[in-house]
Amino acid sequence: MSLLVVGTVAIDTVETPFGVAEAILGGSAVYFSLAAAHFTPVSLVSVVGEDFPERYREFLRSRKVGLEGLVVAPGKTFRWDGIYKEQMNEAQTRRTELNVFEDFDPIIPESCRSSRFVFLANCPPRTQLKVRRQVPGATFVLADTMNFWIQNERRELLELMENVDGLIVNDAEARQLSGKHNVLTAARWICEHGPSYCIVKKAEHGAVLMGPQGQFVLPAYPTESVKDPTGAGDSFAGGLMGYTASRKAVDAQILRRALAYGAVVASFTIEDFGPARLCEISRQDIEDRLKEFVSRTRLD
Amino acid sequence: MSLLVVGTVAIDTVETPFGVAEAILGGSAVYFSLAAAHFTPVSLVSVVGEDFPERYREFLRSRKVGLEGLVVAPGKTFRWDGIYKEQMNEAQTRRTELNVFEDFDPIIPESCRSSRFVFLANCPPRTQLKVRRQVPGATFVLADTMNFWIQNERRELLELMENVDGLIVNDAEARQLSGKHNVLTAARWICEHGPSYCIVKKAEHGAVLMGPQGQFVLPAYPTESVKDPTGAGDSFAGGLMGYTASRKAVDAQILRRALAYGAVVASFTIEDFGPARLCEISRQDIEDRLKEFVSRTRLD
Repeated sequence: MSLLVVGTVAIDTVETPFGVAEAILGGSAVYFSLAAAHFTPVSLVSVVGEDFPERYREFLRSRKVGLEGLVVAPGKTFRWDGIYKEQMNEAQTRRTELNVFEDFDPIIPESCRSSRFVFLANCPPRTQLKVRRQVPGATFVLADTMNFWIQNERRELLELMENVDGLIVNDAEARQLSGKHNVLTAARWICEHGPSYCIVKKAEHGAVLMGPQGQFVLPAYPTESVKDPTGAGDSFAGGLMGYTASRKAVDAQILRRALAYGAVVASFTIEDFGPARLCEISRQDIEDRLKEFVSRTRLD
Repeated sequence: MSLLVVGTVAIDTVETPFGVAEAILGGSAVYFSLAAAHFTPVSLVSVVGEDFPERYREFLRSRKVGLEGLVVAPGKTFRWDGIYKEQMNEAQTRRTELNVFEDFDPIIPESCRSSRFVFLANCPPRTQLKVRRQVPGATFVLADTMNFWIQNERRELLELMENVDGLIVNDAEARQLSGKHNVLTAARWICEHGPSYCIVKKAEHGAVLMGPQGQFVLPAYPTESVKDPTGAGDSFAGGLMGYTASRKAVDAQILRRALAYGAVVASFTIEDFGPARLCEISRQDIEDRLKEFVSRTRLD
């Protein structure tokens, strides 16, 4: 398969002002895969515990997510419990149990080593680097990261950046990593430290793409229907990489459109708890909303 | 003349991480006029003190700003002294001297009463209402406001809203006024309380237009050159209203383009202290940057 993701598969409990969802399927690789699978088949590499429900496995397979690289390890699946308070800007983690993910040492199955498009979801940079080395022929490798690694494994992160084609971060992470307040300056700094492309996610304010052909700015899809923001960032990356992989090439024009697909797919994700809404929709729903998005943003 | 603005003319002292500018020309009506005058002649109604330098008056006239409605009152001109700290998101006011503006009771000169486009810059809502009643035949009246009036003169502000065509506010003001956190929901609330259009300014995150034809979202012009954000909001309104007045009509298509002109003009303003940069540029500079803006944001 042409698109590979390495990240978490989790059992989440999420509370928002709209309710509580207990022990639902979650994790970065899950949101990414379910989003990307609207565009192209995806291979998921991760680890779960012996408690991981067979029905989730079947469900993922039914959504065109390849699970050859999903290892079962003795112990329990990664669990996350978080709450979004009133303004739903940021989750407060109530509890994280790494469980089997603590010793995750991803081995890419032989069948996936020729993947041309790879998403390294948020993981320790050392783990991301190990994966990177197992897919030497990849055309486009995009890595995510987070504040914890920026602060505690900066050296490893900078090494990773030298070995990927793109870095995707949110605005706070871009500032923290670069030491620059202006988001464009921060994105340029990142591009000067390795990756050809930097994508900065600004949540309800859209996203910025910095690359060899210059900058591109995208507002977020304007929505008032937010029930659960969990997985928005990974769905955004999934839509983006899924579309790019389906085009089998990377250039500024394709990435612009890919960002818009990412924004649209993420706008569906947040309309319901967990990945439910992401799985209800069809490719046509995505196309319809993209069309509406274009019409709500075009200037000429 | 077809475009009228009522607001402050001030002497500003501004400090940013890039330096200090002392006793420079400022005020909402000044930034608005200088921005709008790139598109159409403007009439400015305001009050200054006997200390207002003749050279500023000449300068404004040389920029196609009509000063028939600029009254000189006994006393000193409005003065504002503010500082932008490191991140330059918001000014901290060090000192405000209302001076002659304290008793400002704007009388619209006979020659301006037939103005079709009117901008009511931030003022007490009662004053804005008085102006509104002096231009009964206006086609499009846009009002600005601020947190102080939302909190302290809410009743008067709601009455004003029933009597204008558009309200322009920043995201914090939209939330405070409506009690809604989501900016689109807030903008819809505002449109349900009088004006046909609501424009929400989100600084470096762009703007939202809500109107009878639905929503429009615009990212900000991506810039790394910010020296002094003073006047950005009023320049945005000036570009927006100047372009609209030059088109002699208002509809969703014109307003979209007007928002983009507003964003582009504001992006010039913040490149230098005070209105200096705004006056250096030509209409062609604006057109060139708009073209670049469109190319950096277009999806298809």
